[in-house]
Amino acid sequence: MQKKILYIDPVYDNSYLRAFKEHFEKIKNDDIDIHVTSLGEKKGPKHVEYSCYEAMVIPDLIKTVKEAQDNQFDGVVIGCFYDPALRACREIADNMIVTAPAEASFTIAKSLGENIAIIVGREKTIPEIKRNIFEYGMERRFSTFKSVGLGVLDFQKDHEVTMRKIRHAAQDAIENHHADVIILGCTAELGFYEELQKELGVPVLDASIAALKYAEFLVEINKTLGWGHSKVNGYESPPPEEARCFGIFDRN
Amino acid sequence: MQKKILYIDPVYDNSYLRAFKEHFEKIKNDDIDIHVTSLGEKKGPKHVEYSCYEAMVIPDLIKTVKEAQDNQFDGVVIGCFYDPALRACREIADNMIVTAPAEASFTIAKSLGENIAIIVGREKTIPEIKRNIFEYGMERRFSTFKSVGLGVLDFQKDHEVTMRKIRHAAQDAIENHHADVIILGCTAELGFYEELQKELGVPVLDASIAALKYAEFLVEINKTLGWGHSKVNGYESPPPEEARCFGIFDRN
Amino acid sequence: MQKKILYIDPVYDNSYLRAFKEHFEKIKNDDIDIHVTSLGEKKGPKHVEYSCYEAMVIPDLIKTVKEAQDNQFDGVVIGCFYDPALRACREIADNMIVTAPAEASFTIAKSLGENIAIIVGREKTIPEIKRNIFEYGMERRFSTFKSVGLGVLDFQKDHEVTMRKIRHAAQDAIENHHADVIILGCTAELGFYEELQKELGVPVLDASIAALKYAEFLVEINKTLGWGHSKVNGYESPPPEEARCFGIFDRN
Amino acid sequence: MQKKILYIDPVYDNSYLRAFKEHFEKIKNDDIDIHVTSLGEKKGPKHVEYSCYEAMVIPDLIKTVKEAQDNQFDGVVIGCFYDPALRACREIADNMIVTAPAEASFTIAKSLGENIAIIVGREKTIPEIKRNIFEYGMERRFSTFKSVGLGVLDFQKDHEVTMRKIRHAAQDAIENHHADVIILGCTAELGFYEELQKELGVPVLDASIAALKYAEFLVEINKTLGWGHSKVNGYESPPPEEARCFGIFDRN
Amino acid sequence: MQKKILYIDPVYDNSYLRAFKEHFEKIKNDDIDIHVTSLGEKKGPKHVEYSCYEAMVIPDLIKTVKEAQDNQFDGVVIGCFYDPALRACREIADNMIVTAPAEASFTIAKSLGENIAIIVGREKTIPEIKRNIFEYGMERRFSTFKSVGLGVLDFQKDHEVTMRKIRHAAQDAIENHHADVIILGCTAELGFYEELQKELGVPVLDASIAALKYAEFLVEINKTLGWGHSKVNGYESPPPEEARCFGIFDRN
Amino acid sequence: MQKKILYIDPVYDNSYLRAFKEHFEKIKNDDIDIHVTSLGEKKGPKHVEYSCYEAMVIPDLIKTVKEAQDNQFDGVVIGCFYDPALRACREIADNMIVTAPAEASFTIAKSLGENIAIIVGREKTIPEIKRNIFEYGMERRFSTFKSVGLGVLDFQKDHEVTMRKIRHAAQDAIENHHADVIILGCTAELGFYEELQKELGVPVLDASIAALKYAEFLVEINKTLGWGHSKVNGYESPPPEEARCFGIFDRN
Repeated sequence: MQKKILYIDPVYDNSYLRAFKEHFEKIKNDDIDIHVTSLGEKKGPKHVEYSCYEAMVIPDLIKTVKEAQDNQFDGVVIGCFYDPALRACREIADNMIVTAPAEASFTIAKSLGENIAIIVGREKTIPEIKRNIFEYGMERRFSTFKSVGLGVLDFQKDHEVTMRKIRHAAQDAIENHHADVIILGCTAELGFYEELQKELGVPVLDASIAALKYAEFLVEINKTLGWGHSKVNGYESPPPEEARCFGIFDRN
Repeated sequence: MQKKILYIDPVYDNSYLRAFKEHFEKIKNDDIDIHVTSLGEKKGPKHVEYSCYEAMVIPDLIKTVKEAQDNQFDGVVIGCFYDPALRACREIADNMIVTAPAEASFTIAKSLGENIAIIVGREKTIPEIKRNIFEYGMERRFSTFKSVGLGVLDFQKDHEVTMRKIRHAAQDAIENHHADVIILGCTAELGFYEELQKELGVPVLDASIAALKYAEFLVEINKTLGWGHSKVNGYESPPPEEARCFGIFDRN
Repeated sequence: MQKKILYIDPVYDNSYLRAFKEHFEKIKNDDIDIHVTSLGEKKGPKHVEYSCYEAMVIPDLIKTVKEAQDNQFDGVVIGCFYDPALRACREIADNMIVTAPAEASFTIAKSLGENIAIIVGREKTIPEIKRNIFEYGMERRFSTFKSVGLGVLDFQKDHEVTMRKIRHAAQDAIENHHADVIILGCTAELGFYEELQKELGVPVLDASIAALKYAEFLVEINKTLGWGHSKVNGYESPPPEEARCFGIFDRN
Repeated sequence: MQKKILYIDPVYDNSYLRAFKEHFEKIKNDDIDIHVTSLGEKKGPKHVEYSCYEAMVIPDLIKTVKEAQDNQFDGVVIGCFYDPALRACREIADNMIVTAPAEASFTIAKSLGENIAIIVGREKTIPEIKRNIFEYGMERRFSTFKSVGLGVLDFQKDHEVTMRKIRHAAQDAIENHHADVIILGCTAELGFYEELQKELGVPVLDASIAALKYAEFLVEINKTLGWGHSKVNGYESPPPEEARCFGIFDRN
Repeated sequence: MQKKILYIDPVYDNSYLRAFKEHFEKIKNDDIDIHVTSLGEKKGPKHVEYSCYEAMVIPDLIKTVKEAQDNQFDGVVIGCFYDPALRACREIADNMIVTAPAEASFTIAKSLGENIAIIVGREKTIPEIKRNIFEYGMERRFSTFKSVGLGVLDFQKDHEVTMRKIRHAAQDAIENHHADVIILGCTAELGFYEELQKELGVPVLDASIAALKYAEFLVEINKTLGWGHSKVNGYESPPPEEARCFGIFDRN
Repeated sequence: MQKKILYIDPVYDNSYLRAFKEHFEKIKNDDIDIHVTSLGEKKGPKHVEYSCYEAMVIPDLIKTVKEAQDNQFDGVVIGCFYDPALRACREIADNMIVTAPAEASFTIAKSLGENIAIIVGREKTIPEIKRNIFEYGMERRFSTFKSVGLGVLDFQKDHEVTMRKIRHAAQDAIENHHADVIILGCTAELGFYEELQKELGVPVLDASIAALKYAEFLVEINKTLGWGHSKVNGYESPPPEEARCFGIFDRN
């Protein structure tokens, strides 16, 4: 039976959807239909490097998740390495899986190695990612951050330049910080992991792809074994009537 | 010189503003003008016990913070014990102070005692608050959570019932978990701390009041000593032009 | 393309193989061939509740892993909740995945809830499991251990008795320790999760099944994306010639 | 109503009192009378860089705190970055506030940034300060120590030399360790913060001034809200009669 | 070659010296001369349950340590479970060993079991002891505190009563908190460990005796292997001339 | 009364026994008979740098420990810095002490200094040792690892080369990482500590010798005070009959 997963690029920009879709089609499981969407082409942040940009996209993100639920999606990926609004999205998911790149990458990386480095765009993003390192219990497997000095929207401008910068950062992490796994810590670092890991000889995780594959996994065990997000305590759903009354799923 | 602080009740409901204002007027510093606002009486969450409600109010919260900045406020309090969007609000604050109840309460409590208990409304809220216990480095001073089984909007319904429940929870924390400081871990638990601490003989922190007083303090040292939120790394502001272009401060 | 996973019950006893096989066949992915083996019916530990029993089975476990590698298996599960010899088995696995129940259960549980309880047989086993809670970074998501006072070989003696004991322990964890996910922390607790989670309303993880499903996942991403155990540092393989010279894979 | 705070330079040396007083007068709140004292000009340590010096000054420190209490002071600052005898002083303070530079600086710094560097005089002092980093829960916000190779009594010898050394250390912390807040981790580093933070563009905290301002804050909330050090458990006061009988407040 | 160790009861009271001496003589190594002293019968604290009492005895403690050094003692034990002034005493010890009951008990207990309970006199003492649990890295081996409601000077008043209370607390720790080692967390709990551990079937550590034996060990390896307190960084000694000039070893 | 300790070099190689014996005879206590053994000259690992080699030697290690117990040994040292099978060996030891180099070195180092560096042979070994740093609660006293690029069997090939490499690594740790104690983190680094610590001026711990001395200590307190490994919970022994039935102590 086919299962449906929605990858949400949580920005007001459709430019990347095609690239995500192409990458995902190549690596998805056969029994998965992968849909890719953004928040639309409305005025609004085109990247969420700043926490205040991230904040502005969350309501539409949540509405998109709600609609995925209503449209019988089996899983959703919140496509940003800050894992924005993960708890909120799990609250509103009834029996649908929700995951995100940092949770997924850290999970996988911890099974692959013991000294994990994260390549980020700009140093600005480090503190927020660091918080998730503790949240997900990865602090004792963490090696180092390396910043390549590129904004979110810069990564795809010149592949050669980006590749050179990421390669240099990854080599530095491996040689000087004993990294044995590399995470590309921004979903915009799409399209580099494969060549890099061949060159470097260690696993290089693409954050979006990690999230998609981990979503497939969680969806699969949910269907097969009934293991989904606990609806007790932290991920308890709001009373539907109250949520409706508060209009939290209304589109303007 | 008078300084202006804005307390934001981050909900679409003006019902509590008057009560907050009255409490704050009694305990504020003389050189502070305290303003209290909500996000307006629009359709939207009237409380933010659920993370998905919290998420929905953040954009208007951020716009309100931005307007406070534009209107020369010296400080802002985000009036919810989850400390929602604290990083985002600090990013957009140029040279204005932003704080919130959990940061403030934990800070003060740590100078008053060593075994701090938190009285919450419902168990639902514990995991999100627990995350902040780690975020603010209070885990080694933490004693216990006690839930009184009241939703956010229940606290003010019957003061006597609420008082009895909170008192009972606090006594339990003191007697069985060696608590030496009590935090009322919801801004809706307004109006109870004073009587309680007289009865119990240990400090009882009201989360809103703690946040206001801590804001006064941060504002004061900001003015006097130039110590404000660092604009390097984590609280770096977005480029104004980009923020404008993304329309993140536009009112619909 | 079919992939082959070997589940190793690391004891000298074939009695459980059939039960494991039956359970696994029901829940495995279509593209997986699942093989189940023990270490044979030789004299030796029939359970590994004691660390000194666990120690005695490790060489044959490693040889079995090596043979799986030689026989083109894609993944191996070490079927004991202590995750015995996980590093050693990953060292000798060239490009084959190795995982184990605690790693798998903790990983899955952390995506499902935030306050995870573990039901163990006897208290004897708690300290060794506790070490893995820290190893896998689950300490901040951990709720409580509950012991049901049953040895490894007792779980399957009287299903009704076992079910009653586990149910009671799980209810205690949920009601008094705010557990939102239950892990059955012994592979011998097979056959209970399904009924239990229906009754309890929270996810109940069977450790063996969690390990098998997580192995399927790691195998799948290994095949699709080339993400396998890093062979740098911690999981570096020994030089084949030296390993041969030391006879570490020789069957007596 | 005026409130009285006593800043104690816990050494047998009056040389610095005037400088402290002058700095404090410029930055104190209007409703605060700030008194500055040392332990007198008796024979004894003139600095407390060594823990054994620190130990020798504690009895007179405690007596000074007791006298402050008897003289209706509202708050006391223990003027050394090791925060010596903080628990002891809080025990003997009835309803008077006691704080100290490390507690105050760490508290403030954590609200201003997320990667805090500490500039110390000599490496000798690092382990004792490090212990307080854990005590106050600042380990996850800590960036690095930088030592400038100056003893406590050297800082004020040649302002230009000191400034150059501190500036260099701070720049190193910012550039190579991503520091976003600088703490001058010795009360003798007085008189440098202002110029430094202008140059560096990040907050630079003077430890004495941080302590004084935090004391003002704690005094203010104590007066206004009744929030003082809990007298239960850790800060419980000794029975007055016993304390008298043991002569612990007697001047020789 | 005989080695000399000084056990210092850091109070102004000789009443316990004889009891300590008698216990120590029975269990010391043959090549050790054990001396027992207090700070003399001067006016001053007769117990150090309060941190402010503890503070008052430290200068005389340090002078006593210095004299031990001058009199060619090989080791010193600071006889209080708070481990008062351990760093300071190590600074002034040239090549003499200094240790204390908490360091010693925690060290030994960690080699004997994995879930260590501490029986204290009054709850007042818990926060200060808890700080040492973190200082010595014992937090992951810690089970629980149990308070018996006895002041330091009460323990020896009625052995039967004390024994009953301690036994009850220890049984509670073993049965309800899975304790596998018991530490008697006050040096005044002398004379109970032997009978208790026979009854309880788990090791029961007497804090003073643990400290003495650990001191013997550290002295022995110091003599044999040259392993003493590092004089670099944290335990660096003050310049002798300065120490003399500051009069820190002068008796009044 | 003489006590007997067995040092087990857990490899199939007698080459090092003589060197260990000679070193131990020089530094052991008079009342100790020190025996040194390997696992015999059978085919098998001659070093245990790889976890899979380590795994292969454990059954014979356990049998050797069992025989030591049967032959009235008072203590056993597992002579490898990974502390292999420490729990298992403690389980099977009735009233015999078992310890190992990492436990012993970390314990001693923590009483000697506060910033401990470990010199290892190859980086491969770091992750497994790092796990023990957390296991033994040394993370807050840890400074840095330095690898000298030598395999276990290389250390004794050319003393001059080895000495030069270790010296260089230790100096680097002291100068650039503020190390105040050095641990030679491989038992094969025998014969270097003495000269090194003279040159470097900080304690340099030989891992084997630390283990032997700590074993002497634990044996001595066991005999004198009855403090041995708790047989409750973690170190509970298996039922003798079952162990016999499982043949876990049978020699092939």
